[in-house]
Amino acid sequence: MRLTELVRHSLEEDIGHADVTTESTVPAHKEGRAWITAKESLVVAGQAVATEVFAQVGARYEALCAEGEAVSPGTRIGWASGPLRSLLSGERVALNFLMHLSGVATHTRQVVAVAPGLRVVDTRKTTPLHRALERAAVRTGGAHNHRFALYDGILIKDNHIVAAGGITAAIVAARRMAHHLHKIEVEVESAAQAAEAVSAGADVLLLDNMTDDAMAMVFAAHRGRVLFEASGNITRERLPRLAALGLDLVSMGGLIHQARWVDLSMKIEA
Amino acid sequence: MRLTELVRHSLEEDIGHADVTTESTVPAHKEGRAWITAKESLVVAGQAVATEVFAQVGARYEALCAEGEAVSPGTRIGWASGPLRSLLSGERVALNFLMHLSGVATHTRQVVAVAPGLRVVDTRKTTPLHRALERAAVRTGGAHNHRFALYDGILIKDNHIVAAGGITAAIVAARRMAHHLHKIEVEVESAAQAAEAVSAGADVLLLDNMTDDAMAMVFAAHRGRVLFEASGNITRERLPRLAALGLDLVSMGGLIHQARWVDLSMKIEA
Amino acid sequence: MRLTELVRHSLEEDIGHADVTTESTVPAHKEGRAWITAKESLVVAGQAVATEVFAQVGARYEALCAEGEAVSPGTRIGWASGPLRSLLSGERVALNFLMHLSGVATHTRQVVAVAPGLRVVDTRKTTPLHRALERAAVRTGGAHNHRFALYDGILIKDNHIVAAGGITAAIVAARRMAHHLHKIEVEVESAAQAAEAVSAGADVLLLDNMTDDAMAMVFAAHRGRVLFEASGNITRERLPRLAALGLDLVSMGGLIHQARWVDLSMKIEA
Amino acid sequence: MRLTELVRHSLEEDIGHADVTTESTVPAHKEGRAWITAKESLVVAGQAVATEVFAQVGARYEALCAEGEAVSPGTRIGWASGPLRSLLSGERVALNFLMHLSGVATHTRQVVAVAPGLRVVDTRKTTPLHRALERAAVRTGGAHNHRFALYDGILIKDNHIVAAGGITAAIVAARRMAHHLHKIEVEVESAAQAAEAVSAGADVLLLDNMTDDAMAMVFAAHRGRVLFEASGNITRERLPRLAALGLDLVSMGGLIHQARWVDLSMKIEA
Amino acid sequence: MRLTELVRHSLEEDIGHADVTTESTVPAHKEGRAWITAKESLVVAGQAVATEVFAQVGARYEALCAEGEAVSPGTRIGWASGPLRSLLSGERVALNFLMHLSGVATHTRQVVAVAPGLRVVDTRKTTPLHRALERAAVRTGGAHNHRFALYDGILIKDNHIVAAGGITAAIVAARRMAHHLHKIEVEVESAAQAAEAVSAGADVLLLDNMTDDAMAMVFAAHRGRVLFEASGNITRERLPRLAALGLDLVSMGGLIHQARWVDLSMKIEA
Amino acid sequence: MRLTELVRHSLEEDIGHADVTTESTVPAHKEGRAWITAKESLVVAGQAVATEVFAQVGARYEALCAEGEAVSPGTRIGWASGPLRSLLSGERVALNFLMHLSGVATHTRQVVAVAPGLRVVDTRKTTPLHRALERAAVRTGGAHNHRFALYDGILIKDNHIVAAGGITAAIVAARRMAHHLHKIEVEVESAAQAAEAVSAGADVLLLDNMTDDAMAMVFAAHRGRVLFEASGNITRERLPRLAALGLDLVSMGGLIHQARWVDLSMKIEA
Repeated sequence: MRLTELVRHSLEEDIGHADVTTESTVPAHKEGRAWITAKESLVVAGQAVATEVFAQVGARYEALCAEGEAVSPGTRIGWASGPLRSLLSGERVALNFLMHLSGVATHTRQVVAVAPGLRVVDTRKTTPLHRALERAAVRTGGAHNHRFALYDGILIKDNHIVAAGGITAAIVAARRMAHHLHKIEVEVESAAQAAEAVSAGADVLLLDNMTDDAMAMVFAAHRGRVLFEASGNITRERLPRLAALGLDLVSMGGLIHQARWVDLSMKIEA
Repeated sequence: MRLTELVRHSLEEDIGHADVTTESTVPAHKEGRAWITAKESLVVAGQAVATEVFAQVGARYEALCAEGEAVSPGTRIGWASGPLRSLLSGERVALNFLMHLSGVATHTRQVVAVAPGLRVVDTRKTTPLHRALERAAVRTGGAHNHRFALYDGILIKDNHIVAAGGITAAIVAARRMAHHLHKIEVEVESAAQAAEAVSAGADVLLLDNMTDDAMAMVFAAHRGRVLFEASGNITRERLPRLAALGLDLVSMGGLIHQARWVDLSMKIEA
Repeated sequence: MRLTELVRHSLEEDIGHADVTTESTVPAHKEGRAWITAKESLVVAGQAVATEVFAQVGARYEALCAEGEAVSPGTRIGWASGPLRSLLSGERVALNFLMHLSGVATHTRQVVAVAPGLRVVDTRKTTPLHRALERAAVRTGGAHNHRFALYDGILIKDNHIVAAGGITAAIVAARRMAHHLHKIEVEVESAAQAAEAVSAGADVLLLDNMTDDAMAMVFAAHRGRVLFEASGNITRERLPRLAALGLDLVSMGGLIHQARWVDLSMKIEA
Repeated sequence: MRLTELVRHSLEEDIGHADVTTESTVPAHKEGRAWITAKESLVVAGQAVATEVFAQVGARYEALCAEGEAVSPGTRIGWASGPLRSLLSGERVALNFLMHLSGVATHTRQVVAVAPGLRVVDTRKTTPLHRALERAAVRTGGAHNHRFALYDGILIKDNHIVAAGGITAAIVAARRMAHHLHKIEVEVESAAQAAEAVSAGADVLLLDNMTDDAMAMVFAAHRGRVLFEASGNITRERLPRLAALGLDLVSMGGLIHQARWVDLSMKIEA
Repeated sequence: MRLTELVRHSLEEDIGHADVTTESTVPAHKEGRAWITAKESLVVAGQAVATEVFAQVGARYEALCAEGEAVSPGTRIGWASGPLRSLLSGERVALNFLMHLSGVATHTRQVVAVAPGLRVVDTRKTTPLHRALERAAVRTGGAHNHRFALYDGILIKDNHIVAAGGITAAIVAARRMAHHLHKIEVEVESAAQAAEAVSAGADVLLLDNMTDDAMAMVFAAHRGRVLFEASGNITRERLPRLAALGLDLVSMGGLIHQARWVDLSMKIEA
Repeated sequence: MRLTELVRHSLEEDIGHADVTTESTVPAHKEGRAWITAKESLVVAGQAVATEVFAQVGARYEALCAEGEAVSPGTRIGWASGPLRSLLSGERVALNFLMHLSGVATHTRQVVAVAPGLRVVDTRKTTPLHRALERAAVRTGGAHNHRFALYDGILIKDNHIVAAGGITAAIVAARRMAHHLHKIEVEVESAAQAAEAVSAGADVLLLDNMTDDAMAMVFAAHRGRVLFEASGNITRERLPRLAALGLDLVSMGGLIHQARWVDLSMKIEA
């Protein structure tokens, strides 16, 4: 779903046939301004969404700080102008996007700060229909993205291995059917699985729920032949040790789904 | 957006033109089963969404515990059966909904547990396009709902008062324009505002960001004439004291936006 | 359905792949003007729809009299300018909306004229997909609106009472489940039902198909405790007597569904 | 817009996020039946729409009289069965379609009764998005249809003649550009225009707003060479005289837009 | 499907969530130009589609030769300007439309060139969802159009005759039910069928898969009473002979479905 | 666009408000059967689309030969049964898909037959909105697929190199931004470009418009380090020589856009 559609449906969800409070209390012709202000320390994300929201209700939003800027409480991050009715009717949807996305960016930045050289990536554990925005917020926060979806990357997970009848069978089938621009990543949980995957031609190993020591051994055995991704039970505390191992990337679904909304408010000036 | 559409768009987001891993590694004719299991203690929510997700990919999902049931780690909350390709392609979307909604229900139940007699309600701070589901999860967790959207309730907030030129003006205008089945709620921040709202005919007062003492005074001054809702800076810790005050309801956006996803996994059996 | 969508679908219905007459007889580059003229006395409604229709076909419409203006036969109510093809292809859809909506406004004004102080409201007996426009025309004609739809007001009707197992049971259930900004209206057909509804906590009584005398008695018994709405078999002739009773509102579906289209024509000037 | 979509949007308009009265007062598991009854004499139309409406809300509708049957007050025209919630939530939309369409059929039958041998047809003056249904109701009532829309018939009207620079120019252009399965109809207001149209190759003459005598003269002059349609200021009273003239068809927009809704009610049995 | 929608869906098909190559290799702010050049001799068609494609990706396209112009290899037929990302992301969709439609126009022109006076028309054998564009390309190439679709013309084919129980039955039924602006065309395969169709009132005969001699005989028997269309096994080589017969039109599905894409390329200038 | 939607829109394009010929000549209740027959030698493709088309019009289609089967003239490839109206109204759309897709499969099989061991792939030169179907037909014909779209593969073409400021710059940027499951393919036109691409880390070389000798030299220089794809001016005649070179794949847009529709007919049995 494109951004314009996502915003349109979101406004329909919140406004429906009419914003009955605003239409009955605010004259149609009154114009004004409104400021959106950070109520806590946060990393700003979602400014383009806010711009689209206010545009769709007939107002104009201008960002007062850049996407990715870290701001302190009280900072005005943007302002909107236009008919007061538009400002009031668009307020909640704009804030809901900004509070969620800035929450993701803020959380991500806190996480990646502990292991500066490590490539931390997100996963497909994203809020349905918000994936593109959440992934952008992850980049804004300083991490990177994994494949976008099931359609743009080959990742053979435990369930596929069961269904295909083994690691080698799965890799061979994927190589034959997939187009030639796909690398093949395989989820492994042991040194033996890793060895089978490498010898069957995997390009990337997903080391799932392994201890640091186990990962170190797999890495030593196959380094230079494949890429290594660590996944599962990855906490912020563990990142520095993982960085030291020399792995290529670490994936954390929690960049997105453990992030809490940050607090923003909007005040109008009539 | 109706549930069928929300799920359809969510599957399109994740599957797109094809689940390339599954289509290349799993034969089209293979059938199987899969179990979804709780990896932590949680309150189950979202079973109907999971049913819809698997139905849309051509499989069948059956809940193994009721919506709202509190389960311990290791509990199987549902199982799916059908073509293995369908199970694998639907897994992530189904889990994304279940993990988010069960997270909301779990968090809500923890919150309301501390003040059993109090009517705790949600707000319009919801994830765009997920409001109906998140509100249902709030009910599942044991709290109640506020108005759904801007179209089904009159709530005159600070920004409306500024725009309308005062509390009395706003209430009079709302009474004249709105249909006769709407009560009129007004956000107030002081005893003086409360008094003006009551005398202008408000049906409900939203006591915003007031201290317990200030709320108690307003409540004493106008009890029996209007309903009272407390809002702003409401923490779980504060709920028992608020309950003791005798207010009619307390609203907490955090029931939804401070909830974290709970952990669920799916394993197939080929 | 938003206005832009309603108009877009309406133009698709009438134009489809091409306006074959216009495309074959009128050169693409020719510009011109057209006037829309009242062929009878009427109250104008729908000017914003006409503006949208002509905009979507690539022309420009300007109202020559205000929404709600009462005009005599021969009055030009608006004019359109732009490519002649656009004017010709948009003509019918624009007129169909204007003739229907002006018909509703005209009829409504005739009805409410006989009882100036009475709050006359519409019902949900509206043409599917045209409700927002028809309700606006009702306001343009001088009457008011009831709730918009099933989602924004509690109205317990005879069928609900049967299904719920009685008036008291229905009211209690509604009070518990509905959000706190809803008033509860109950349809009653006798003094006994009215008494039960009031004592169970109804906020509004819908007096359905009752005689003037019966309504007067119910009104006397409960006045000051609830609002009173009269409904069913309400004719224009009966309105003055109902006004005299002191009821709060009278609902008439016929404002909309007994209104006939008024006559308008469009003539172009090449 | 296909019927399923029209009904879906209509239900969304009336139900939206929830039928709050029904959901709070009627238990989800209760099943029941409901009868739709004529409250006046009418010709039934729209049974297939009612079937679709109830199907979309999860119930089942069965017609108890045929499309086009003339029934007396008190006749049950159909019944619905299923969850009570479905019956109550679908009631209004089903009735709105039935009351409008049966109104058109009833009015049409009254009109055509006065001139049995005459081919009376509708026009493009139809309610936007309801054209297919209204035209079917016209046939149900005993009249016929004109072209459906701008895309399926060539009808050169006064405005086209002005834009094209004359009758002959318009006909020649239409003949060259239009496909060979289109007849060409031309609106004329005088004997001279009629003569020009015929000699330029028109297949059909639309005699607009002409007196009976004027039409008779045109008919006499060109009979056998073209078809004749009378239009404009056609009243039911005038039809017998028009029938006597020998014209091929008479078009009346009023079959649809002067029809009033007939009265139907639905009662449930829990 | 309107052009804007067709183009929007086409861009979604090719770009999806992101043009990953362009977004990673081309800076967002870089602007540039690009030329679209003919790589072979061809007749240009589809310029309006290219304009729409580039507009939807945020660039601007300007045609450098007119729709229908015959150009030699190396001719620049248009140029686009704007953000380089937009030019690169829109290139393939724009070219796919232009190469296909110019292919149809080029092929059509070659076909009709051999029989200048003959009215050659297309059929309903068109690429699904591309019919309006392909038919326009046919006109651009110098041929004409048959009816657009099943909804705007009566053409009784062999299968209808079987289903209706004979030619006469089918014609009588069509005349009664269809609106009066439809001519009735009937597919016939022999002189006997032609005679029956004419005497039952057909307006047009479709002479299907008949030899030149057989067509000549039918033509001689009924000329002046109906129109004649030849169809089936019509090759370019046969057209001059068919032209000589005096038939009204010849239909060739192959104008569209036997046309090959012509070769165009786009080169940018950074 | 999913198949159900593509078919739905295609049926709307061809049927619109009604199939006027069929509705007026064929009784609604008549049932029958119809056979689809090959009129020339061809490879069958598109059976699933035909099934969907007939299902959407209320009939049932059953394939009589497998997808990919080579059949001779006169072979019945499928049959449909159900209401005659459904068979007649669905015929053209079903045939249009089958004739086009079978044309692609037939042409592809002829092409790949001359170089059995070579991996021949398609390109993004596909008919807008038909890409998934055309690519499936390519596989049915015995060739393979390239990336699906701009979103699922990195292919740096000449225009990207210009925009990025050189081959090395483009590859470095792509490696940094793209996710780790993408291989990076680079279009090169000379040995020098090839060397730069390989040394900058390309995974695949697209050898564009190079002579056999030039390709052989590039292949010799870098074999074993990257994959090689030949593209541009690839004719069927040239394929055996290309196969002998040892390249990994050869891409031919013409598999799809130079394929002509094959001839199929449908005959009903009433």
